[in-house]
Amino acid sequence: MSLQRVLPFTKSLLEQIVASGDRVIDATAGNGHDTLFLAQLTGPDGTVFAFDIQKEAIEATKTRVEGFHHVRLIHDSHAKISEYVDSPISAAVFNLGYLPKGDHSIITKSQSTLSAMEQCLELLQPNGLLLVVIYSGHEGGSEERDAVMEFVRTLPQTNFDVLQYGFINQQHSPPFLVAVEKKLKKN
Amino acid sequence: MSLQRVLPFTKSLLEQIVASGDRVIDATAGNGHDTLFLAQLTGPDGTVFAFDIQKEAIEATKTRVEGFHHVRLIHDSHAKISEYVDSPISAAVFNLGYLPKGDHSIITKSQSTLSAMEQCLELLQPNGLLLVVIYSGHEGGSEERDAVMEFVRTLPQTNFDVLQYGFINQQHSPPFLVAVEKKLKKN
Repeated sequence: MSLQRVLPFTKSLLEQIVASGDRVIDATAGNGHDTLFLAQLTGPDGTVFAFDIQKEAIEATKTRVEGFHHVRLIHDSHAKISEYVDSPISAAVFNLGYLPKGDHSIITKSQSTLSAMEQCLELLQPNGLLLVVIYSGHEGGSEERDAVMEFVRTLPQTNFDVLQYGFINQQHSPPFLVAVEKKLKKN
Repeated sequence: MSLQRVLPFTKSLLEQIVASGDRVIDATAGNGHDTLFLAQLTGPDGTVFAFDIQKEAIEATKTRVEGFHHVRLIHDSHAKISEYVDSPISAAVFNLGYLPKGDHSIITKSQSTLSAMEQCLELLQPNGLLLVVIYSGHEGGSEERDAVMEFVRTLPQTNFDVLQYGFINQQHSPPFLVAVEKKLKKN
């Protein structure tokens, strides 16, 4: 046994929360790894909405999820999520930073990230999860990290639980996870 | 499913790492809850070394683990762990702060806590875990938290992985976990 690394831990949370037939969002399709994983979890009766502003990412993801007809690839900013998704989701995933192997100057930015996160929180069904993997080693990364952390720290604890999971003795700003769970509403 | 709270997550790590026959340390016996849990995991062929400086805590723990003959209750400071334990352990647990329901002015202090943590890291076998649950809401708690965090952040990543697990949008400084895993030595 070893302590689970950040990406396997993130996947294990998705496995626990996402069921066959669910609607989910991959807010940063990138090279399509998470999109594929979500496509497998949701199955043909579910829907994966995968966003990316880069044509290159959409193409890479399209190749990776070939044969999965319940994946909707959306070449647009995740800041417009609510224009494309209007019914409850069980999970949303963000990998902040730049496209691996792509143009490192094209990065997610605080303003659109926060707007997209807010829209996902609105769409989450009770017990649903918003998972944000934060890379902050690149230029502009620490500003985005700080903005995201300030946002999630102030989410009301009556409506959300916010978990931080990460390794803290490593050099080069390794990624860490922020997981937001929407609570059941009490009437 | 919900995100696991800090104490259940801590227990689940112990369940994964502690096997029957192991030697383990409860550095802060308190009311004996962790001591009992460790006694159950290690079984009659194992040994649980449970430390507390307060007579009241030792008495409470003694009652709780009645019938478990492999628990050694040690009424002494955990800063003297290495005087009592000289062979490898698979896990050590700390609950920092004061004795629940006891005298809230008697708290764990940075200097002895760090010394005890160092001794436990030395005793840990490869893949073994040091688990520190940090309560910082009480007077003097934030100083101890800061000292512990500075210590663990600077543990060399060649020898240790340090995970932080906690909820960050809650009022009243809820406890969080720091888990240190000793890595296998590479020769």
